Amino acid sequence: MSETMRIMLPGPTPIPDSVLREMARPMINHRGKEFRVLFESITEDLKWAYQTRNDVFILTTSGSGAMEAAIVNTLSPSDRVLACVAGEFGKRFAQIAETYGASVDRLEAPYGSPITPEMVADKLRGVHYKAVLVTHNETSTALLNPVGEIAAVIRQALPDALILVDSVSGLGTAPLPVDDWDLDVVLAGAQKAFMVPPGLAFASVSPRAWAAHAEARMPRFYFDFGQARDFARKGQTPWTPAISLFFALARAMEMLKAEGLETIYARHDRLMRMVRAGARALGLGLVQNDDRYASRAVTGIYSPEGLHPSRIQALLQEKFGYVVAGGQGPLVDTIFRVGHLGYYDDTDMLGLLAALEAVLSESAISVQPGAAVGAALEVRRQSLHRAQESI
Amino acid sequence: MSETMRIMLPGPTPIPDSVLREMARPMINHRGKEFRVLFESITEDLKWAYQTRNDVFILTTSGSGAMEAAIVNTLSPSDRVLACVAGEFGKRFAQIAETYGASVDRLEAPYGSPITPEMVADKLRGVHYKAVLVTHNETSTALLNPVGEIAAVIRQALPDALILVDSVSGLGTAPLPVDDWDLDVVLAGAQKAFMVPPGLAFASVSPRAWAAHAEARMPRFYFDFGQARDFARKGQTPWTPAISLFFALARAMEMLKAEGLETIYARHDRLMRMVRAGARALGLGLVQNDDRYASRAVTGIYSPEGLHPSRIQALLQEKFGYVVAGGQGPLVDTIFRVGHLGYYDDTDMLGLLAALEAVLSESAISVQPGAAVGAALEVRRQSLHRAQESI
Repeated sequence: MSETMRIMLPGPTPIPDSVLREMARPMINHRGKEFRVLFESITEDLKWAYQTRNDVFILTTSGSGAMEAAIVNTLSPSDRVLACVAGEFGKRFAQIAETYGASVDRLEAPYGSPITPEMVADKLRGVHYKAVLVTHNETSTALLNPVGEIAAVIRQALPDALILVDSVSGLGTAPLPVDDWDLDVVLAGAQKAFMVPPGLAFASVSPRAWAAHAEARMPRFYFDFGQARDFARKGQTPWTPAISLFFALARAMEMLKAEGLETIYARHDRLMRMVRAGARALGLGLVQNDDRYASRAVTGIYSPEGLHPSRIQALLQEKFGYVVAGGQGPLVDTIFRVGHLGYYDDTDMLGLLAALEAVLSESAISVQPGAAVGAALEVRRQSLHRAQESI
Repeated sequence: MSETMRIMLPGPTPIPDSVLREMARPMINHRGKEFRVLFESITEDLKWAYQTRNDVFILTTSGSGAMEAAIVNTLSPSDRVLACVAGEFGKRFAQIAETYGASVDRLEAPYGSPITPEMVADKLRGVHYKAVLVTHNETSTALLNPVGEIAAVIRQALPDALILVDSVSGLGTAPLPVDDWDLDVVLAGAQKAFMVPPGLAFASVSPRAWAAHAEARMPRFYFDFGQARDFARKGQTPWTPAISLFFALARAMEMLKAEGLETIYARHDRLMRMVRAGARALGLGLVQNDDRYASRAVTGIYSPEGLHPSRIQALLQEKFGYVVAGGQGPLVDTIFRVGHLGYYDDTDMLGLLAALEAVLSESAISVQPGAAVGAALEVRRQSLHRAQESI
């Protein structure tokens, strides 16, 4: 029985020690100078991570609250909305829009498949949607949707449509240049790639989204971007913010800026490839077959025939301390998911793969000893080689 | 210039060291066993603080989000609602109900005066309100409304009406026996008397409120009590919770339970009387003249003629490190507010009063040396004497 808990979830993710220490700082006045300095510095840092000049707001809420904010700040009841649904989080985005009275059409990808630009282009023919909802990283199916290509298709067909992107678990794992791709509202969560405990979510708001905000008639109060904008001018949030998480985020952003966006993306890409190569070397199937659409945040792995994924989860935790996630929705009985977003390095993936090999072997699944770690190390070698060549 | 920051705000409040240390704990899986144990234990502790058998939910949000939750979970657009407004937070509660389409009548008390049961009884004559909104502790005017008496009047006139109580800054400072007073939804904030950094709010939900929830048609998603109830059965929250704040709250509840509700209320009552006696001894006016209606969480003090309250705030902070709050709404140019809810003791009040005396004296306001501290010590002496007699 391992007493160490090694969480490898698609959020919450491990928190660096120096970030955890910031969590323990005494309170300050959220209406005072010290908070204003903190607020303004973090806001600038987030714009860097978002690659945007748009407003970026920090909300004291979970990611789902930020999804609600994107809807209620830009839409009115009966607005026509296209929801791209490729899993549980796409469903949730659509459901929120419906809850507030939007007229929602769903573009559904089969479970495990991406939303493609072609599918979106088909749907946009002849229908003037006010907004399109897209999930960047669909955690439930370990999917990375091609948001840049999808956005290009939307802009071509409907230049004025709002593109609302749930990147709660995506931002910081894979490129999402908000201004280059002309995205209107983009949501992210602090407990994901940002290496901060849960409780904060972020939202960028484009000029097009502000124009929509001025007309939008869905009811909103706590999540009102207008209030957030008014208070941001004073370096404040409209409601009492989760101050400790602001302290933590400031430190985490220092670390992320020191690493650099390109290096962060390359690291997530490498960790994803290591886990995928390792799982394949153990004879396991992946929910995403095509690397292009494989999530950089989490990998969905099919459990071998006759071994329930919850059994793999239990053994990984009991014997090695690794906490991985189960499946969601229709995949609940067939897959487990390994998170690799945020504060992880190559060594973390090697340890997980070694433990996974042991668990399968002890469960009488035939595996080639050392195969998973060997395959992952080869990915690492090639990746470091490419990085050196590119210098 | 003092480098120590001594916050005496009506929230956030100082955090005990052992609670701060809990904030720095590593993350756990919010869908796992360890979280379930934490969740269930805190929920029971909160029911103790609420003196209720009703459901109590922990929401990852500020107090204002919990106010929104109370409205959208129990009401439908065009429902008739009576909002008791005695300051900025009463206004906010009314505004939220209107934002979501309720038909709101306002019962307004003059700034600084309480809502009395008589005023409420008058308003209820002949009108069948679906709900009455009441602020327990109105922070902006440092007012404690007589919620028990108000609730009794409501129940007599309208046995089925919902009583929705904003006690964001009140619960834990003064008695609020939720079941005895038959209150339907009661909101509280973690960053107030609960001695935890901001980011969590609580809501109790009565059977009457659940019946209303089943019929209520205001749109709700993130704040839906139904989702909270479904997930609570599994020891979970519907959305990723602010896990660090759960750790902190568990420790804070241990401290509160060790102190006991009666002792906590007596302490807040004593701190309030010490500050009031001290302010009066310095010749300063109080927003609440009547002790019965004086907030146990915060005291509103008029600045002397010719000295702007922001000047007193600045001097208290620069010279002594005390961070007190300014006024809100129409009182912004006339009062400052001293918070004394949560982790404070008598010594904290003596220090603040000594600093206040010095600041006034240095601002050429005539004060009797030692008068404020002397008066506060006398309150303390009498209070300890009474406590001894009652043993």
